[in-house]
Amino acid sequence: MAFVFLPALARMAVCGGTHGNELSGVYVVQEMERQRKEKGEGVWPIPVTTVLSNPRAVKECRRYIDTDMNRCFTRDTLSCPITDSSPYEVRRAQELNNLLGLKESTDATDMICDLHNTTSNMGVTLIHYTTSDWVTLHICKYLQTKITNVPVRVLVLDFPICDAYNLESVSKHGFTLEVGPQPHGVIRADIYNIMKEAVDLTIDWIHKFNSGMVFEGGDVEAFKFIKSVDYPRDPETRSLTAAIHPQLQDRDFSLLKQGDPLFYTFSGETVKYEEEETLHPFFINEAAYYEKGIAFHLAKKLTLTIPTVQVQKD
Amino acid sequence: MAFVFLPALARMAVCGGTHGNELSGVYVVQEMERQRKEKGEGVWPIPVTTVLSNPRAVKECRRYIDTDMNRCFTRDTLSCPITDSSPYEVRRAQELNNLLGLKESTDATDMICDLHNTTSNMGVTLIHYTTSDWVTLHICKYLQTKITNVPVRVLVLDFPICDAYNLESVSKHGFTLEVGPQPHGVIRADIYNIMKEAVDLTIDWIHKFNSGMVFEGGDVEAFKFIKSVDYPRDPETRSLTAAIHPQLQDRDFSLLKQGDPLFYTFSGETVKYEEEETLHPFFINEAAYYEKGIAFHLAKKLTLTIPTVQVQKD
Repeated sequence: MAFVFLPALARMAVCGGTHGNELSGVYVVQEMERQRKEKGEGVWPIPVTTVLSNPRAVKECRRYIDTDMNRCFTRDTLSCPITDSSPYEVRRAQELNNLLGLKESTDATDMICDLHNTTSNMGVTLIHYTTSDWVTLHICKYLQTKITNVPVRVLVLDFPICDAYNLESVSKHGFTLEVGPQPHGVIRADIYNIMKEAVDLTIDWIHKFNSGMVFEGGDVEAFKFIKSVDYPRDPETRSLTAAIHPQLQDRDFSLLKQGDPLFYTFSGETVKYEEEETLHPFFINEAAYYEKGIAFHLAKKLTLTIPTVQVQKD
Repeated sequence: MAFVFLPALARMAVCGGTHGNELSGVYVVQEMERQRKEKGEGVWPIPVTTVLSNPRAVKECRRYIDTDMNRCFTRDTLSCPITDSSPYEVRRAQELNNLLGLKESTDATDMICDLHNTTSNMGVTLIHYTTSDWVTLHICKYLQTKITNVPVRVLVLDFPICDAYNLESVSKHGFTLEVGPQPHGVIRADIYNIMKEAVDLTIDWIHKFNSGMVFEGGDVEAFKFIKSVDYPRDPETRSLTAAIHPQLQDRDFSLLKQGDPLFYTFSGETVKYEEEETLHPFFINEAAYYEKGIAFHLAKKLTLTIPTVQVQKD
């Protein structure tokens, strides 16, 4: 088993409200800020910056004001000139890059944990963009071990960092913490508690790592994004002509085989999966993806082998 | 048992999209319009008008554009003068009153079935504003008998018709058909199917009634709205400081007793129900009610006795 020494993680940020109607993250950040006010900066064993990412969208309880902010953190969008007609979220993304980045620089925050909810039945899903970030994958493994009441899955997008569009791509390590199912604009105590636990465990791992604890390597099961599938639509109006089939609904990360039902048309017919390749659907029936033309994504399962890690000595 | 002869129901309307992000009704209306196009006006055994109530809100997948339209059907709002600054939904409510009313007039449509979704776990809930509309209560009883895979409950608001603010108050009889749980902005096939079945059964009842079938009277269990309860909030910011307690979440229409948990604060404490009166909570954690200051409503159970009914002979 490989053994790797890695730098300590000096700065961490917890971000909520990157989508303004995904309320668990908003209230986790609010509660952390209350705790800091009550107990002082030493409330956590490591320094934690808390950020309400899109305050205008949170105030209006909408996903975004002008454009989806969590698609604005590419190198290109972060470096585009701001004009009077720039969308609010592009301005705010650049502000957040100044606060937490700069992206791809040595000054960037070590770790961002960006809090999201989904209407899909995805339990805890940890999304990041590389298959070789040992710190992030070790935290995923730690959360998989410690959280036992809901499934914890790892999803890798496998993008080059310059094209990675998510907020956490601004930091050196980090992940999107997706917890669901929860309707947008709603806070459920069970989902809030799972998210809070995942954040606390992440802080816990970083503190242990910085203190010199050795984390054993091994295999991590992960899902890799392959492609997206849209709803059947009327060719003229673009209106949906079918919903997710009841046998697929809520079955995120199950195995999809040729002949399995995908959609249920509003006139009562079943549309089946035609392809030979077995894949794993996720983000099934996510509210925010109707406008993006996505009924679900498909992923392939893979096993990542990660080395044992320990913090570098000074 | 009392026996009452009632006039035939000549005109019925099925309305969806009164709230633009409650998608089951939008797609039920769309499917009915497709069926009519395919099979002609005789597709249903009675004449049915289909209405997309708030087309602008449906297009933007929002509850409303300027104001909640389903609070605009009071006598006062329907008769207020329209000016350049009138909210879109007030104009549209007056249009719908012209199309389906006039409210409180002999020309009004006999029956409106107005289709809604809720994020609350309310199964099928039939909401109307009187305890003495035998036609509507008979349809409720019929749906309770015929739909067996989800609970079907009757909720009466007990308002005078002039103050009734819902779309269905424009017609002589009618009800709001609430089906949940479904996140706003999402269509679930299971919820769609339940709603479609309830609409088909309503048409079925009206056809049988018009054809002379005798419907036996008896007792109908109903819930009567008593009052609303808000979330605990920060007195300064008005931000929520607690969510619905996990033991109350999804338990709409259960019995709430003194000492039962109501809320779970974000710091982990339980807020209990303090009152002596046992009541039944509903619309628990409905997304659209956060802005109205409502965490749930409370109802009292009551039994309504309805007479046997038959259509009047010509």
